[in-house]
Amino acid sequence: MTVTTPAGFRSAGITVGLKSTGKPDLALVVNDGPAPASAVVFTSNRAQANPILWSRKVAQNGPARAVILNSGGANCFTGDFGYETTRLTAEAVAHELAAQATGEEQVPADTVEEGAERVLVCSTGLIGTGDQAFRDKIVTNVPVLVSALAADDTTAPAAILTTDSVEKTAIHEGTGWTIGAMAKGAGMLAPGLATMLVVITTDALLDSDELDAALRRATAVSFDRLDSDGCMSTNDQVTLLASGSSGVAPEENEFAAALAGVCDSLAAQLQADAEGASHDIDIEVRGAASVEDALEVGRSVARNNLFKAAIFGNDPNWGRVLAAIGTTDAAFDPYAVDVSFNGVRLCHAGAPDRPIDECDLTPRKTHVEIELFAGSFAATVRTNDLTHDYVHENSAYSS
Amino acid sequence: MTVTTPAGFRSAGITVGLKSTGKPDLALVVNDGPAPASAVVFTSNRAQANPILWSRKVAQNGPARAVILNSGGANCFTGDFGYETTRLTAEAVAHELAAQATGEEQVPADTVEEGAERVLVCSTGLIGTGDQAFRDKIVTNVPVLVSALAADDTTAPAAILTTDSVEKTAIHEGTGWTIGAMAKGAGMLAPGLATMLVVITTDALLDSDELDAALRRATAVSFDRLDSDGCMSTNDQVTLLASGSSGVAPEENEFAAALAGVCDSLAAQLQADAEGASHDIDIEVRGAASVEDALEVGRSVARNNLFKAAIFGNDPNWGRVLAAIGTTDAAFDPYAVDVSFNGVRLCHAGAPDRPIDECDLTPRKTHVEIELFAGSFAATVRTNDLTHDYVHENSAYSS
Repeated sequence: MTVTTPAGFRSAGITVGLKSTGKPDLALVVNDGPAPASAVVFTSNRAQANPILWSRKVAQNGPARAVILNSGGANCFTGDFGYETTRLTAEAVAHELAAQATGEEQVPADTVEEGAERVLVCSTGLIGTGDQAFRDKIVTNVPVLVSALAADDTTAPAAILTTDSVEKTAIHEGTGWTIGAMAKGAGMLAPGLATMLVVITTDALLDSDELDAALRRATAVSFDRLDSDGCMSTNDQVTLLASGSSGVAPEENEFAAALAGVCDSLAAQLQADAEGASHDIDIEVRGAASVEDALEVGRSVARNNLFKAAIFGNDPNWGRVLAAIGTTDAAFDPYAVDVSFNGVRLCHAGAPDRPIDECDLTPRKTHVEIELFAGSFAATVRTNDLTHDYVHENSAYSS
Repeated sequence: MTVTTPAGFRSAGITVGLKSTGKPDLALVVNDGPAPASAVVFTSNRAQANPILWSRKVAQNGPARAVILNSGGANCFTGDFGYETTRLTAEAVAHELAAQATGEEQVPADTVEEGAERVLVCSTGLIGTGDQAFRDKIVTNVPVLVSALAADDTTAPAAILTTDSVEKTAIHEGTGWTIGAMAKGAGMLAPGLATMLVVITTDALLDSDELDAALRRATAVSFDRLDSDGCMSTNDQVTLLASGSSGVAPEENEFAAALAGVCDSLAAQLQADAEGASHDIDIEVRGAASVEDALEVGRSVARNNLFKAAIFGNDPNWGRVLAAIGTTDAAFDPYAVDVSFNGVRLCHAGAPDRPIDECDLTPRKTHVEIELFAGSFAATVRTNDLTHDYVHENSAYSS
């Protein structure tokens, strides 16, 4: 169990034929708790998919009741028809949840309409996919999905995957309350969120403002510091739902730290499963004049293709690190910087230091440390190497 | 002949053993004209190689007399020793030119020192390379290089190449005056200049201010719009030398247009020889609210690895274009944009348009047109695709 580990939630995952592989592709998480609250963070890309446009409105309407997620199609740049598909999907969920609750198949139209305004929608897959067949497969199968909802469900995490090779889940056990989470994402990982969909649930008793503050703090230091390939998605959404079912109101900082831990775990899982990667690279920037400077420096390296290709070749090419960070506006002297790979300082004070053959880059886990000597702030940016498999996976299929 | 096509110049290229391949690696261009003038544009990277640090000072000292260029080592982040190597290189050139002019091997120390301050130095190759052996090979061979200088030389262009597969040269014939040029560059191609060294000569009669204005105009619309892999170099330098030997002072706009044409030709040659590329992609952005917006939009696509990998796979993935441009601050409505590949409009008004199988991406030359419907400005950014060969070349060797 993941998103149903906290009390007050049901979930389900089914197969409706959106993926050519025949794998599960439609998931639903429902908040049945006595004190529902929610917070959502969206992609900062201006090119936004229809489910993002819809969910942004839902997020304004008060606590979300449910989130439905499909893989196998992004429903992005699919025109007015695509937006209508999203609305019909949310209405179908609202209808079926109401019918299930009352035992009556007939549900008043205004109940459906109002209920739909509390249903978040997430989609992931190929941009431009969202035709009549896509709509029909989702909308006509919502009754099956709702009837599959269970408080001990284990099927939802698989149904949101695309090119992911493994399910990503995380759980935190608090004192009398818990957090559960599931995520998908294996490419287009960039700050401002990635091609990731994340649903996090908790039975803690917190209001939506408290959830929102904690979620923004957590994503800022986890998903926003993951930059696998520099490409920002149109469909990213991180949803946090609280049921209040535990009756326990955790201290604000305790909950925020726990949530940050869950998000950090998911971010590490996303990094470890990035498309085609052979190295998970943590770029630790120290001695920065500000956190912002540390992040700018870290991201300039994370997005440098020559650096990323060198790591693939197990080449600790510190010159490419310096060439990358020299493009930033961060405060530091390029000739005073130290650069270490996996603990071996290869560049010191603008000149070569230890011999590069002392550095072993064969382990998948790679640590690059950049000491700027410009202040006392630090940040770590996660990225991956640039590999033949990355090129293959992103050229041989459309996504 | 290239840089010696204009009257008043001599050049030479020799082999001194800097490259493991044994190919030519040291070149010299000398301005013997009656009215020498010069202009130089440098990399905007803050991480700058020793020859850049040296040449920036030279550029302040009045018209440059000569430019010496080596491949096989960048002399970047090589400490004070590396800077001293650059100074000794320039002094050796000054000494030998003075000795050649007077026929006396003894040259006064102040003549050498003052002469060196008119000698530009360019280096290209692996960052961190610049030890005693590197210095010795260059400095001890300067006499050989100077004695090889010829007004009908054809050997200089080959001596500046690194991973380039072909020499890059361009010539413009004006009315009574000419421009000649040579360039190297096959990777790290990015705005603010690329891993490129360029020497342009002219026998037109122009002063250094006129050259500088024309050179900045020309590079802004040529090299600065070439973004092969988003990686900015530490060693880029574009040098323009005028001899005045023709005695003809061309009209300012006529010369500027000719120079822009030469630079555009070289930029196209750099694009066509980019490391591992299988497609030369021209991203034409139209209907922008400003040229700056058009460039920002074009560059966001040029730097999107998912887009570049798709082109390698002959996949006209317009969704990745929209996902890329949605990250910019340029003025446009993402849902009003048209995207065409090789003349086929695949996306119109936020939805799919023509079927993608109408679009043939098998030719190397690829044209992506993005109509923003936000104004009347346009710009084209040149880039390349992301290929297995790119990953191989940049991981299997250190540069």
